[in-house]
Amino acid sequence: MLNAPTPDLLARFAAIVGPAHALTDDAATEPYRTEWRDRFPGKTPLVLRPGTREEVSQILALANEHRVAIVPQSGNTGLVGGQVPDQSGTEIVLSLDRLTKIRAVDAEGYSMTVEAGAILADVQAAAEAAGRLFPLSLGSEGSCRIGGNVSTNAGGTAVLAYGNMRELVLGLEVVLADGRIWEGLGSLRKDNTGYDLKQLFIGGEGTLGVVTAVVLKLFPRPKGEAAAFAAVADPAAALALFNLARDRAGHELTGFELMPRIGMDFTLKHLAGTRDPLAEPSPWYVLIEIASGHSDEAARATMEDVLGTAFEAGVVSDAAIAQSLADRKAFWHIRHGMSEAQKPEGGSIKHDVSVPIARVPEFLAEAIAAVEAMVPGCRPVPFGHLGDGNIHFNVSQPIGADKEAYLARWSEMNHVVHGIVGRYHGSISAEHGIGRLKRDELPAVKGEVAMAMMRSIKQALDPNGILNPGKVV
Amino acid sequence: MLNAPTPDLLARFAAIVGPAHALTDDAATEPYRTEWRDRFPGKTPLVLRPGTREEVSQILALANEHRVAIVPQSGNTGLVGGQVPDQSGTEIVLSLDRLTKIRAVDAEGYSMTVEAGAILADVQAAAEAAGRLFPLSLGSEGSCRIGGNVSTNAGGTAVLAYGNMRELVLGLEVVLADGRIWEGLGSLRKDNTGYDLKQLFIGGEGTLGVVTAVVLKLFPRPKGEAAAFAAVADPAAALALFNLARDRAGHELTGFELMPRIGMDFTLKHLAGTRDPLAEPSPWYVLIEIASGHSDEAARATMEDVLGTAFEAGVVSDAAIAQSLADRKAFWHIRHGMSEAQKPEGGSIKHDVSVPIARVPEFLAEAIAAVEAMVPGCRPVPFGHLGDGNIHFNVSQPIGADKEAYLARWSEMNHVVHGIVGRYHGSISAEHGIGRLKRDELPAVKGEVAMAMMRSIKQALDPNGILNPGKVV
Repeated sequence: MLNAPTPDLLARFAAIVGPAHALTDDAATEPYRTEWRDRFPGKTPLVLRPGTREEVSQILALANEHRVAIVPQSGNTGLVGGQVPDQSGTEIVLSLDRLTKIRAVDAEGYSMTVEAGAILADVQAAAEAAGRLFPLSLGSEGSCRIGGNVSTNAGGTAVLAYGNMRELVLGLEVVLADGRIWEGLGSLRKDNTGYDLKQLFIGGEGTLGVVTAVVLKLFPRPKGEAAAFAAVADPAAALALFNLARDRAGHELTGFELMPRIGMDFTLKHLAGTRDPLAEPSPWYVLIEIASGHSDEAARATMEDVLGTAFEAGVVSDAAIAQSLADRKAFWHIRHGMSEAQKPEGGSIKHDVSVPIARVPEFLAEAIAAVEAMVPGCRPVPFGHLGDGNIHFNVSQPIGADKEAYLARWSEMNHVVHGIVGRYHGSISAEHGIGRLKRDELPAVKGEVAMAMMRSIKQALDPNGILNPGKVV
Repeated sequence: MLNAPTPDLLARFAAIVGPAHALTDDAATEPYRTEWRDRFPGKTPLVLRPGTREEVSQILALANEHRVAIVPQSGNTGLVGGQVPDQSGTEIVLSLDRLTKIRAVDAEGYSMTVEAGAILADVQAAAEAAGRLFPLSLGSEGSCRIGGNVSTNAGGTAVLAYGNMRELVLGLEVVLADGRIWEGLGSLRKDNTGYDLKQLFIGGEGTLGVVTAVVLKLFPRPKGEAAAFAAVADPAAALALFNLARDRAGHELTGFELMPRIGMDFTLKHLAGTRDPLAEPSPWYVLIEIASGHSDEAARATMEDVLGTAFEAGVVSDAAIAQSLADRKAFWHIRHGMSEAQKPEGGSIKHDVSVPIARVPEFLAEAIAAVEAMVPGCRPVPFGHLGDGNIHFNVSQPIGADKEAYLARWSEMNHVVHGIVGRYHGSISAEHGIGRLKRDELPAVKGEVAMAMMRSIKQALDPNGILNPGKVV
């Protein structure tokens, strides 16, 4: 059983970080106890902003001793309520936002060591300054922090070529539930000395330990890039184009994003500075990115080869290749704006799902039919990382419908869509994690054996259950 | 406490698989209780060869109920004694060698599902037949089995471009210590639904569960390849060449292997059909492989660009580019024969270590000096995957020395070399795992916090300690 912290205990927690970094008044704690979608408003008696890992260690040791709940938080950009306290007012928020140091960049060793609070965009920039690439890239990169990227096993648009965050981590420094510090900051490419403990904390959503620093893998910067916007008739054609592109570009295919016409309509209507890259509308689009180890010309030649072959095969009906960096940015702006452009269209019910790549077209047909049957007039806007089988299956409300009434059917629609996902052996959370939002759905999709294993691991690493209670397991 | 199985219990185990697949006599069990280096001769009352995962499940349930030790075994090619029973004669061997089915190859989804007993070379061939690449490649690929590759997180020569086995696994089917079957055979590229349980069994060396089937990642086959044998003055020059090659070839650099002249001498002397690819001897060599998504010509052009730049920079003194598939095979034959060619030279004390890539030259200088000081006249033959920081630091006995007396100093020399590895924050087991061989060394290199975590995970998943006792933790 967890305890509500007494005023005396709160004072002891605050003393660890000093009064300037222990926030208690409502205005000061507000950015830490609510999140940007405002779906999980929480309460907290205290936000702690430690400045060293030793302070993190002292906080957890004290919390563990007194059975007080701790909610670790990094950039607070999560989408499943994993990073905010509940409504009880008894959970203390532990923010990593002062641990922002880039400790070291080892260009020759293709690695860098950063603290959990470093902002992703700053990490990318530090790698670039050393002539290297840190490939993780996602919409919130300007404010999300690396500790959260680790704890949620972040995905994004570069997974196809470089993998999820899990594949980008070489080592971790973690404070365990009882305050012990695990020094796992290795930078080795190969190390088979016992169980790979870091894997537990990657995607652990802060329920097994608090990540305080990370060693990241770096890559050579591509010498050239090409991007194209291609019109395809349907998701099956998009899949054919994907297979063709992978076959002809191999490792050089670094992005493959699917978008429907309605998403393009919303974007052109609501997002400033966008224009349609193609002359005629098409039911579906693909944004393709190719990187070359040699030059822009080489990347472009590969792109032309891919598109030329696709035209001949009748897979693509039209395409525009970016002629400049500005064009490339404009293409990505459309893709990155696809979520935001749905907001002015009223309520949007969201699903972050994946299915085996080859089954994306079938899945889309079935899921679209199912939600249209459930809410006649609703407007599905499925888009995302076709190359990973990961579709953000968002569904906008019917035109003129009541927003609140529509959003009240969120769980019902999730249930329908996730049921289809299950039949395709897919995932109900491809990128965003479980957090609080999907915790109740987890047992049905994982099965009893997996749930029992998860609970036994949670018990092994956090026997008092102080870390992020009510999340994941 | 574990129990010695009674004759009655042995009969019950045998009945699960049937008499034809329950081996008891010495000649029949011999291939399962000894390993090829003959360093860990073991005893066993029974070898079980189940034909289905349900039989594996029944075996573990019975063993767990009666607290009988089970040693899971796959291809029996391991180098650290992890796959063979001890001398007590109470441990039952559970061989996966009848579970050899390739269940499915999904070319469009870039994945395949295979049983744990499938031989690696057969898996590679099945992928190739579907026009895809399964990149894991190692010396024992003709006899090692995929379950062992998973359980030891196998490395090999393609790690630089494709990662270790861990990066190649999408899903697992595992029988837990108490016989429950975990159905984790997903083929999703992205799935953030709870803890990533498969990571525990990858590299778990059969101490946490028995892997019975695996979903593997497949890749496009390269359209072209080029290989070169280059002469370099020293490991520092090899490192400079690596950085230059990675910079100019990026993702296309798929192999980078370091070899010393003495290894070449041994190979030319003892391995049939080898010849020196270069006219003049050099103190060190690098075997470089480049793959292209386009053509052999493109791969060759990149290779020429890399080597041309390296010549101009004074990093390489001579090089031969393979003119044919036969040449390429001949280059790799030298590299793959490097271990075998050491045998006729007498005793060889081996180390499977890694250090941060940028520190390989310093490490080699220090380690070579240390072993030469310890055993004057000994002949270090360090070779391996420079691109991963992974060096097989083998040391042949002095010419004419007594083999047994030399090999008696195995632990002493390991201690010296591993001490240096530790100072470089390296790994004492980069590829081969811990097994029985390095179990006693593990606490010193991992530290108490990591050891405590490992023990708590072992306790959580195998509370009676029946799985592979005496290995790893």
